[in-house]
Amino acid sequence: MDVAAILQAIEVAAKNSPDRGRVADYIPELASIDPDRFGMSIVMADGRQHSVGDARLPFSIQSVSKVFALALALGRLGDRLWQRVGREPSGLAFNSILQLEHDRGIPRNPFINAGAIVVTDAVLAGYAPREYLGELLRFVRTAAGDDDIHINQDVARSETETGHRNFALAHYMRAFGNLTNPPEMTLGAYFHQCAIEMTCEQLARSGRFLAGMPGMAGLVSPSRVRRINALMLTCGHYDGSGDFAYRVGLPGKSGVGGGILVIAPGRASIAVWSPGLNSQGNSKLGTEAVERLAKSTGWSVFG
Amino acid sequence: MDVAAILQAIEVAAKNSPDRGRVADYIPELASIDPDRFGMSIVMADGRQHSVGDARLPFSIQSVSKVFALALALGRLGDRLWQRVGREPSGLAFNSILQLEHDRGIPRNPFINAGAIVVTDAVLAGYAPREYLGELLRFVRTAAGDDDIHINQDVARSETETGHRNFALAHYMRAFGNLTNPPEMTLGAYFHQCAIEMTCEQLARSGRFLAGMPGMAGLVSPSRVRRINALMLTCGHYDGSGDFAYRVGLPGKSGVGGGILVIAPGRASIAVWSPGLNSQGNSKLGTEAVERLAKSTGWSVFG
Amino acid sequence: MDVAAILQAIEVAAKNSPDRGRVADYIPELASIDPDRFGMSIVMADGRQHSVGDARLPFSIQSVSKVFALALALGRLGDRLWQRVGREPSGLAFNSILQLEHDRGIPRNPFINAGAIVVTDAVLAGYAPREYLGELLRFVRTAAGDDDIHINQDVARSETETGHRNFALAHYMRAFGNLTNPPEMTLGAYFHQCAIEMTCEQLARSGRFLAGMPGMAGLVSPSRVRRINALMLTCGHYDGSGDFAYRVGLPGKSGVGGGILVIAPGRASIAVWSPGLNSQGNSKLGTEAVERLAKSTGWSVFG
Amino acid sequence: MDVAAILQAIEVAAKNSPDRGRVADYIPELASIDPDRFGMSIVMADGRQHSVGDARLPFSIQSVSKVFALALALGRLGDRLWQRVGREPSGLAFNSILQLEHDRGIPRNPFINAGAIVVTDAVLAGYAPREYLGELLRFVRTAAGDDDIHINQDVARSETETGHRNFALAHYMRAFGNLTNPPEMTLGAYFHQCAIEMTCEQLARSGRFLAGMPGMAGLVSPSRVRRINALMLTCGHYDGSGDFAYRVGLPGKSGVGGGILVIAPGRASIAVWSPGLNSQGNSKLGTEAVERLAKSTGWSVFG
Repeated sequence: MDVAAILQAIEVAAKNSPDRGRVADYIPELASIDPDRFGMSIVMADGRQHSVGDARLPFSIQSVSKVFALALALGRLGDRLWQRVGREPSGLAFNSILQLEHDRGIPRNPFINAGAIVVTDAVLAGYAPREYLGELLRFVRTAAGDDDIHINQDVARSETETGHRNFALAHYMRAFGNLTNPPEMTLGAYFHQCAIEMTCEQLARSGRFLAGMPGMAGLVSPSRVRRINALMLTCGHYDGSGDFAYRVGLPGKSGVGGGILVIAPGRASIAVWSPGLNSQGNSKLGTEAVERLAKSTGWSVFG
Repeated sequence: MDVAAILQAIEVAAKNSPDRGRVADYIPELASIDPDRFGMSIVMADGRQHSVGDARLPFSIQSVSKVFALALALGRLGDRLWQRVGREPSGLAFNSILQLEHDRGIPRNPFINAGAIVVTDAVLAGYAPREYLGELLRFVRTAAGDDDIHINQDVARSETETGHRNFALAHYMRAFGNLTNPPEMTLGAYFHQCAIEMTCEQLARSGRFLAGMPGMAGLVSPSRVRRINALMLTCGHYDGSGDFAYRVGLPGKSGVGGGILVIAPGRASIAVWSPGLNSQGNSKLGTEAVERLAKSTGWSVFG
Repeated sequence: MDVAAILQAIEVAAKNSPDRGRVADYIPELASIDPDRFGMSIVMADGRQHSVGDARLPFSIQSVSKVFALALALGRLGDRLWQRVGREPSGLAFNSILQLEHDRGIPRNPFINAGAIVVTDAVLAGYAPREYLGELLRFVRTAAGDDDIHINQDVARSETETGHRNFALAHYMRAFGNLTNPPEMTLGAYFHQCAIEMTCEQLARSGRFLAGMPGMAGLVSPSRVRRINALMLTCGHYDGSGDFAYRVGLPGKSGVGGGILVIAPGRASIAVWSPGLNSQGNSKLGTEAVERLAKSTGWSVFG
Repeated sequence: MDVAAILQAIEVAAKNSPDRGRVADYIPELASIDPDRFGMSIVMADGRQHSVGDARLPFSIQSVSKVFALALALGRLGDRLWQRVGREPSGLAFNSILQLEHDRGIPRNPFINAGAIVVTDAVLAGYAPREYLGELLRFVRTAAGDDDIHINQDVARSETETGHRNFALAHYMRAFGNLTNPPEMTLGAYFHQCAIEMTCEQLARSGRFLAGMPGMAGLVSPSRVRRINALMLTCGHYDGSGDFAYRVGLPGKSGVGGGILVIAPGRASIAVWSPGLNSQGNSKLGTEAVERLAKSTGWSVFG
């Protein structure tokens, strides 16, 4: 299979796309990104890496960071984590808070905002936010095999200033006793975690442990990898998760910065970035690119 | 891998389980089933079949029939079907009707009751219910390679008499224009479809087309098979779908009769039956059995 | 106070209104009503009656009938009725079925459709629908002091054919055990009850018992009258009830046929009819007319 | 009518009540209140005042303060206030946040917490919290004709520390643009407003303007008084408002401190206090006392 040729065809299709979606504009640092950016990178099981476009430009990984935070939290807390957050898709688009009310402060899964905030809160227990962020960065750098991965402080600051919905979620969970640290502390760590910047090449390499590639089993055990992949498949794209599974057939996690990490177990780790979003808040060209990739390669977990 | 030995260990564990769940009792035909029944059957990629326990006793497949009805509907209507039903997990347990109100009569996915009723309604267009049921039976018999598969008329009649919630769903969707036949007609066909009886051995064989086994590609195309599997994984167990994906890692569809059809793509088609249900309405021992199977065999779509 | 002059000014304002709302069109019998119709009639405490416009044309009273059915049900069942239906405003516009799910089949109040269906179902116990309708007509005729009040069979038939949402509600409550008769029977009686036709003059007279007028206390006791008025004030206009109370300050009950019955306790019983509806399904000019009346007369229960 | 005798009978009934409800315990200042306290006071239209029990002990008026804040806000902003808050009962008990999501940050009415926070936020525009609180106290003191009314700073501080649900509401509305001040500032003023302490005698006198008593029309105009009473009747007891209207038939506003202000327009202003609450968060003995009062006096706005 000529993955390099497939990638080039995908890049051409992306460049010719008449509709690039809409760049997130709730903070200036994201709003100012050039909407024409497009990058993609694939690490194959044999270690070779293929890239096209802006694959070496760093971007804000945002919610893709929830995958790394979850891996870290499961490593430290194990199954105790599931006392505070569920493992079910959240379904309704408007449920971020509705479900919290219905479920008395227990978020549906670790990939919606409320759930990720609880995961961060759980890992923070006994740590200073700075220590947690240091450990998270070490985890990501080790996974990527690259120390040049950093947090964008301006993004973190802007998130803090505009993050009223996240403050509402945190206070609400605290009212139900499902937040152990002060909301400001947990959210401070959370906003910094979302402000990690990576390139497509770095992000693709950092996903090798989820694809079960050689040498990565020490980072996270194979059985835990399978479970993280399961959560990415059922919950990785908010209320577009079912559609992504139907069209792409691979576990993936998107971020509002326009990045998506996609795993073809045993075969490849894929990162794509295009800042324009579709109506569900996932990268429009990025989603189309991985759908095209899945079609061309036949990669699918479903047969 | 000694699948026969694994199956025997699973049967022993099932027989020794202190808690068998609770048998569905909303119709007398299901309530009278012996709660101690347990059967399991696996068809391997090479065609060999292993069975234990009551694998040759017929049971009511109930919602497992939704998989066959969906395959039939996609074959006849193609992607037009998705104008009337979504592909997203439904999330909330109480959403059967809440979501219909929110989504103006479009059910979330074809595996919740409302969605399955729409699928049946869509296939019925231009058919008499009797013709549709005949075609569905032919499909299932062909898939199983066994003509001895029938509809239990007593079960269908009891469902009709007690199915007020399904009548509510049907009338509600009709009020939104998403039901083309009279509710009585569509539900008549739907209740009969749910009343199909099969043994574990038959059900496991009937799932071979979903596992991509040789000779079954003519029934449903490989790309469509992948998509049906994706829907089973994200939506196959109601609001327990995420948990099933997390614990088992394989697409599956359960029925209130206690049966579950599980697919290990490229490897095996599995059927299990134990009539006691857990709190989410899925077979308790059946779920535990397939979790044990996945652990013992390492089968998982996630690596 | 010159009520006749006030009424004439109201009629002029109504005739000059540039926006008459939108006539209900879900059944042909309502859709064909002339949108320019406007009638109003007031019975004063001293027995005098003032009318303007089309006050002697019969129209379909629809949900206004819920007031008479409730009075009848309370007379027969007393407070036992409240085991099956609540007394709280329903709040959300989209709650007709949402709340039934949340409240496990107990409707919020007797003036939303689900609640009125339960009220009819409760009265029906032990009666044939024909007997119930006969008794209801007797009640209304006695209240109005006029035997020329009838049910429009065409309207009842059309309601039955298009009433899928009401069938959904009925089946849904039956699934929770809160409907004792077959849905077809209860809804048959309900649709006929809604199809009662009255003129504004008849409707205003029929409300005298709610205004506490002399000679009407034998029909319904004063303490029960107060309670029915309380329910009309808090629940009489669906999710526009709070606004009606705020702007008009009097108990009232509207119907989709464009009629409204309004009570000024101790002072007057008022009926208004204009078929065009506002966005909440209440008569647009009718609501404006009673607001104007309240302002001109100073009638308000709130001081 | 011998109101003094009626009051004494009510006090006896209250003292003998076997179930006094449950005192609010979310802050120590409320939790430590003696549950046996019971006081009641009535100011008649002729200015005479009757009291029983602990009518001269100050208690935390909590949500009863929302009535005064609303009167102040309407006086300053007029109908512009209704662009930011609705006038409908909220219905569902669990809707505090659900409805905010559905209604995109516009609370249902000014008497649920979210609505009262918006009212305070609206009045604060251009003011320092200290100035607002000063003006509110002046309003209450003028209404009561008593300068000895103060804010309990300890209560305000405890509310701030435990008020995570209110912080969630405030941040959530801010996310929708329906909060103009920083959540901390608005909530600071709101928590102090709720911490006003009054005796039953003071509270009853402060409600004279709502009962339309002589000499109070200068404080709030009669038409506005009617409208505030309408809101109290439809929304004054959360999701127990319909039941209160049905049983008592008078406008009222309750507080979690166990106080209730009840208005008999043109006749009396009533205050009752008993710290034990019923399941809907309203004073248990207080509600029973005003129901008994309404029955004994025949006072009702409904005839």
